[in-house]
Amino acid sequence: MERKEEMMAEVLELVEARALVRLRNLLCEQNPADVAEIIGELKDKEIPLVFRILPKDLAGDTFSYMESDDRELLIRSFSDVELREILDELWLDDTVDIIEEMPANVVTRILKNTDPAVRRQINELLKYPEDSAGSIMTVEYVSLRKDLTVAECFNKIRRESINKETVYNCYVTEKRKLIGIVSVKDLLMADMDAVVSDIMETNVISVEAYEDKEVVAQTFTKYGMLALPVVDKEGRIVGIVTVDDAMDVIEEEATEDIERMAAITSTDKPYLKTGVFSIWLTRIPWLLLLMLSATFTGIIISSFETALSVFPVLISFIPMLMGTGGNAGGQSSATVIRGMAVGEIELKDILKVLWKELRIALLCGVTLAVVGYLKIILIDNLLLNMNVSYSEMAVVSLTLVVTVFVAKLVGCSLPILAKAVKLDPAVMASPFITTIVDVLSLIVYFFIAMRILEI
Amino acid sequence: MERKEEMMAEVLELVEARALVRLRNLLCEQNPADVAEIIGELKDKEIPLVFRILPKDLAGDTFSYMESDDRELLIRSFSDVELREILDELWLDDTVDIIEEMPANVVTRILKNTDPAVRRQINELLKYPEDSAGSIMTVEYVSLRKDLTVAECFNKIRRESINKETVYNCYVTEKRKLIGIVSVKDLLMADMDAVVSDIMETNVISVEAYEDKEVVAQTFTKYGMLALPVVDKEGRIVGIVTVDDAMDVIEEEATEDIERMAAITSTDKPYLKTGVFSIWLTRIPWLLLLMLSATFTGIIISSFETALSVFPVLISFIPMLMGTGGNAGGQSSATVIRGMAVGEIELKDILKVLWKELRIALLCGVTLAVVGYLKIILIDNLLLNMNVSYSEMAVVSLTLVVTVFVAKLVGCSLPILAKAVKLDPAVMASPFITTIVDVLSLIVYFFIAMRILEI
Repeated sequence: MERKEEMMAEVLELVEARALVRLRNLLCEQNPADVAEIIGELKDKEIPLVFRILPKDLAGDTFSYMESDDRELLIRSFSDVELREILDELWLDDTVDIIEEMPANVVTRILKNTDPAVRRQINELLKYPEDSAGSIMTVEYVSLRKDLTVAECFNKIRRESINKETVYNCYVTEKRKLIGIVSVKDLLMADMDAVVSDIMETNVISVEAYEDKEVVAQTFTKYGMLALPVVDKEGRIVGIVTVDDAMDVIEEEATEDIERMAAITSTDKPYLKTGVFSIWLTRIPWLLLLMLSATFTGIIISSFETALSVFPVLISFIPMLMGTGGNAGGQSSATVIRGMAVGEIELKDILKVLWKELRIALLCGVTLAVVGYLKIILIDNLLLNMNVSYSEMAVVSLTLVVTVFVAKLVGCSLPILAKAVKLDPAVMASPFITTIVDVLSLIVYFFIAMRILEI
Repeated sequence: MERKEEMMAEVLELVEARALVRLRNLLCEQNPADVAEIIGELKDKEIPLVFRILPKDLAGDTFSYMESDDRELLIRSFSDVELREILDELWLDDTVDIIEEMPANVVTRILKNTDPAVRRQINELLKYPEDSAGSIMTVEYVSLRKDLTVAECFNKIRRESINKETVYNCYVTEKRKLIGIVSVKDLLMADMDAVVSDIMETNVISVEAYEDKEVVAQTFTKYGMLALPVVDKEGRIVGIVTVDDAMDVIEEEATEDIERMAAITSTDKPYLKTGVFSIWLTRIPWLLLLMLSATFTGIIISSFETALSVFPVLISFIPMLMGTGGNAGGQSSATVIRGMAVGEIELKDILKVLWKELRIALLCGVTLAVVGYLKIILIDNLLLNMNVSYSEMAVVSLTLVVTVFVAKLVGCSLPILAKAVKLDPAVMASPFITTIVDVLSLIVYFFIAMRILEI
């Protein structure tokens, strides 16, 4: 961490003094991911200046690690020759990522500056829907014929490796159909004159191009692989997803779920680089929606105004009851949402989940009721002189049991139901469930109060 | 998905009929991860029966993919010879994982059945603290001397590859110090008589063995690597973390954060396989803590009882105000917690974050106040005949602005402060912040009410 700060200080000094040769030497010693980070922290007008001093291959790698806004700034400052040089250095899947995030006029310039063959591949890749396996795959993989010898395979790999994102898994095809996988480790351990068809693994795990990228991530974590082949409906290989992209998916999906669970519209822009107005836009719709839906709690309280004026102490327990309901429901929904995201809980498990949550809810509800009862006696009455009567205590405790019960069942079933109708389970998270549980717990509270206190 | 159900049905049938040869053939066609899943769904007494029919190498791989409780059941059913055979097939890091999750008597049996040399390595690995890089690394990597030729390297890799978890990155050491990295891709592209020191990458990214595993995960996603070398304080290589383990860390850390943010004590046990009582234990302490801390909201409401009896309509807005505060604070805390988890927000950014949230809070607060004001006029008064006076509307609107402001500042700063004192930021999440914001929003509400309504 300190090393990073020192490095940044040195870079700033060299930029200031326009000591470009020394700066170039310093940057050449760094990893491209770090160079991208360093350049990203410079002032906008210095970014193209510093980027231009990088040697060509480092420039390409660095560019692929940069943030979207820095890339756009650079592309706008590039001449056509410079742009073409960078594009030549990039992997095809990175180029497609860049195209997807740029405004239309920049995209036109990028496409104008790529070879017709590459442009065709790009357009092919751009056809896949945003969250599909196809949208994150690359077409730069090594394919082998099943009748090649190991020695011939090594020659092919050696010849092609400079243009392939990964060579460690090679794909055996027959009429473009994926029939097997050979890893470089397999090749290294085999005799040089062994034939591919004898050493290839034929039990191939692959994913269909239109499959959701969350399934891609789950497949990677389940099988622990370095690359996953992507096939079309006829089983022909159309690309591969590499493990680094799968890792990004895992991280992005988790971020997306956390944001949705916190009632935020998720974007893939980094927080510190996003404007206040844009962040406001991701948050305010949910706050408004949830605020307006609180109208119902208002209505319920208003209609019990007279009862509350007779038993004013009941008012003071409203926040505690609603809060506990919200927390209890939030626990269940978070568990289920995460379980579905990592593939542990499936639609068919709904009854198992309900039965489990039902028993947990009873245990939690009873514990809370007992502790709540004791708390009223010891803290509220003895310590705070609140004079809560025994029948009022009974109302509060009973409401706790029922509220927690309702909250947990609503909390676990709503995300599963969302999944059943093909919605993201995470939108049915805590804030929503809290709002629903707020209403239900008030109804339960006043209903029980009416019965026990004979209002 | 359907294929999986069909497969399971077929397996159950074959188990039932004790058609073990056909079952063995069927399982041999599957990936070890799938075999582990299939066996995990069998009845307890059938698990050892089916596991025993697997060929040795498939058995080893399958074992490493199994759930902890299935593994324990198997180990208890193994003879010493069987146990030794399985342990021989496992990677060292998997053996260590298994030892870490087993009860003491099983651990003793495992250690008794390993070679003295392996036992020494296991004990070495067990020394690292639970969440450290050392605890997830393996010692089975390929190390090279810098004066080897490429041809010699290939011979060494070929000889050793069967015992190494990954061969694609090889580590160049001098007196055990890590001085460079050579990938198999580099070796493939180099001349056979080139020397390692000429082709190795000397700008090595590594991680210290006692570093938190979250840093390991962040390093993997930042640089997109296949394996990360782990070094001791003197820069000597002690092991490597492979990308599949890094992926597990990313997923586990995200799950842990989501659970903490939902007020659940996180465990790494799968939900569907965890007992009701154990789950209750992970949830009830937080529910109790949050319920008891709601005593404060009760006190505040009680002390304003007389004021509330004069302006009873104020009661009906309490849930809406507290809910909105909780949601607004939850948004900020989730953003900051996730930002810190993926390494985007650091401690030094606290002022940047505060300044950003402050402006977002103002925008959100004012929007909510305006809409809230209109909502009272149009819905509450016109539609529901609630007769909220203009001064009461002013109280509610003003409270909304202040509450959202306070909620967002508390929400973004508490996780950062937690990090500053080396706590997990995720424990300062939504439910906690909601509880604090509940108290603050009530104080604000009644304070403003007192001023405007002259109570």
